Amino acid sequence: MEQEKEWNFQGNEELNASAVSVRGVFNTLLANLNKQDQRPLLRLCRADPTDFSCFRTTPVAPDAIASAAQSFSFNCYPPTVGLLEARRAVAEHLSSDLPFQLSPDDVYITIGCTQAINIMISVLARPGANILLPRPGYPQYEARAACNGLEVRHFDLLPERGWEIDIDALEDLADENSVAMAIINPSNPCGNVFTYQHLKRVAETARKLGIFVITDEVYAHMTFGSNPFVPMGVFASIVPVITLGSLGKRWLVPGWRLGWIVTCDPNGIFQKTGVVTNIKNYLDITTDTPTIMQAAIPQILKKTEDEFFAHNLDIMRECADIFYVRCKEIPCLICPHKPESTLTVMVQMNFSKIEGIIDDVDFCVKLIKEESVVLLPGVTVGLKNWLRISFTAEPSALEDALSRIKAFSLRHMPKCHTSSV
Amino acid sequence: MEQEKEWNFQGNEELNASAVSVRGVFNTLLANLNKQDQRPLLRLCRADPTDFSCFRTTPVAPDAIASAAQSFSFNCYPPTVGLLEARRAVAEHLSSDLPFQLSPDDVYITIGCTQAINIMISVLARPGANILLPRPGYPQYEARAACNGLEVRHFDLLPERGWEIDIDALEDLADENSVAMAIINPSNPCGNVFTYQHLKRVAETARKLGIFVITDEVYAHMTFGSNPFVPMGVFASIVPVITLGSLGKRWLVPGWRLGWIVTCDPNGIFQKTGVVTNIKNYLDITTDTPTIMQAAIPQILKKTEDEFFAHNLDIMRECADIFYVRCKEIPCLICPHKPESTLTVMVQMNFSKIEGIIDDVDFCVKLIKEESVVLLPGVTVGLKNWLRISFTAEPSALEDALSRIKAFSLRHMPKCHTSSV
Repeated sequence: MEQEKEWNFQGNEELNASAVSVRGVFNTLLANLNKQDQRPLLRLCRADPTDFSCFRTTPVAPDAIASAAQSFSFNCYPPTVGLLEARRAVAEHLSSDLPFQLSPDDVYITIGCTQAINIMISVLARPGANILLPRPGYPQYEARAACNGLEVRHFDLLPERGWEIDIDALEDLADENSVAMAIINPSNPCGNVFTYQHLKRVAETARKLGIFVITDEVYAHMTFGSNPFVPMGVFASIVPVITLGSLGKRWLVPGWRLGWIVTCDPNGIFQKTGVVTNIKNYLDITTDTPTIMQAAIPQILKKTEDEFFAHNLDIMRECADIFYVRCKEIPCLICPHKPESTLTVMVQMNFSKIEGIIDDVDFCVKLIKEESVVLLPGVTVGLKNWLRISFTAEPSALEDALSRIKAFSLRHMPKCHTSSV
Repeated sequence: MEQEKEWNFQGNEELNASAVSVRGVFNTLLANLNKQDQRPLLRLCRADPTDFSCFRTTPVAPDAIASAAQSFSFNCYPPTVGLLEARRAVAEHLSSDLPFQLSPDDVYITIGCTQAINIMISVLARPGANILLPRPGYPQYEARAACNGLEVRHFDLLPERGWEIDIDALEDLADENSVAMAIINPSNPCGNVFTYQHLKRVAETARKLGIFVITDEVYAHMTFGSNPFVPMGVFASIVPVITLGSLGKRWLVPGWRLGWIVTCDPNGIFQKTGVVTNIKNYLDITTDTPTIMQAAIPQILKKTEDEFFAHNLDIMRECADIFYVRCKEIPCLICPHKPESTLTVMVQMNFSKIEGIIDDVDFCVKLIKEESVVLLPGVTVGLKNWLRISFTAEPSALEDALSRIKAFSLRHMPKCHTSSV
């Protein structure tokens, strides 16, 4: 038999190294599930409340999609920046919380916030540049930056200060190659909401450093604690702001992938510095949001009633209460801050109360094996030996999951403690 | 007033350089439209037949979307590789033309073929690697390769041989860093269809060179000439094949962005060489196809009747006939090959029959200004001084557009010719 030539391609290691994502870790953890366990698998690892039937979108949303599809008017390619009607609807929706009026030209429709992040990272990733990202954060930013060769520098969120940004440290972190900082407010993964005063200080610091602010406001208005949501765009006359958002979380349709990039920039700085041109050029070579999905946006934003949001926030508040009370009964976990927004919260592992568990990944692997409960290891979001818990589950399922975690914790108590429990 | 710090970010030139796209050029040409012209703008520049009302999707398609949306069952995040039902439906759909059975695991659902291209380029773009692409071709490949630092080497399609690939030249082009070649069959932009024998030679040559074949089959089965469509996957036992496809063109819903990547690889080479792992890792950090869109795929593939396709092909054949006859009456254009598939055809400029036009871009700019007709300059798809014409328009609109192009051509005839016309 003739000697066959080897295949020239033998894997792309760089790509594998950059692929640390919530979804990748989730898939890995699932492989550890004990299939003999008859109990239902309880997933407190994803920011997707639709895993639970109490979280269901308003009929307004699917009706808007059905009507767009059956009109036969939205089968063509959309403009690369998005459908004008959709851009206008998002501009109006966001302007009601801002001290200035957004134009449809400020809005770019994206395939969920994931694509919005990917676009902004690609736009900013010129050689030598760096971006300042929060720790803990949302690993999509880091993964994409690695993929695009954009250097990442982390600033800390401080649990002892309700997860506020360590603003003093920002100044030491930035240099003349720092192009932007990103914040996530309300905060995934921490579940806190930044105050007006804190955001103003962020804006002033960014201005001083000459860097833009990207604000990930996927959880806008989903607050049920004492701090109200303040959009970063309020401070856009101090520093130009890129607002990322989506319908996914607030309308309970994360799989619909309807998001946006919005330039909040009354001084026209994004125009002058080439950001607008770069975004448009990048959109020319990226894939579009399906036209019929975009066409549904105006109806969804206009027709959804306040009761829908209020009802969901009531359930989320109930979940946060259950979580905070029951978490205190779990010896090996410490929750420094009760969640007041979003779908997730960070808890710290207390190693003095647990034995035979090496770290957060080991905790999650053993937990799914023994209790069929999935949590996300903190290392995935930047904090080793912490855990990210999605607390917005069906309340009864949340109770069940926390009971299982408590049983797990007690079972793994150090011997010297066990006798006293 | 205090001296303000400059903004650190001052544009990303690299990104602008890579953004040569059909859509970018289209937007630029539109800026040259004469708004005083009362006649309708006729766009023969986009491969989007839904610009014309005779091309309308089957009701099966919007009904499937409406039903998926209104079921409330597809609001969650999809698996990163795509919904199992959608993957199975695509596997079954494609297997009917192959000598082996595809598994759902061979299929990855993507946001149109654009995302499929972007994913494959990202997967293959390891440092130092190169990819072999057709000239003329589809510039999304080149734009994305530039963006990802993947070197491009072009092989020619030969107009004098009905746009077949210059296979002999392939061997000189490839080296040990060549990882793949891409073909587009049926061919955008040329409108031809490769024969079984030609594809078999491509497979054997790629095997000899140790490179994979990416086959872009967005126009699969849309043939109305003498050559039937043969999927490249037929030769997957010779060389592993990545098939890219979508519903967009055949179902007349390009804006829906429903596409796929399929590994046709009975010998498991993509598994061994890391391609499968790389695709999955990349999908973890990219955005997903909206779940409700994916959920519609099985119904659309199963329920669409043959009459729908036959009817569309009849109109397309009529368009190709009109185009080919009428094009011969336009002095400055030469069409080397009558289109027998897809939506586009390449014609060459005959400079001996035109005056005061520098090149293909100049031709297109003056044509839209004077006649409100948009064609795509050939340079966009790799052939300077050619034009890409989308001939699948409403037949009456196509006649109108070709009359206008003829008038334009006659008006710009060299003086020594004008008297004899």
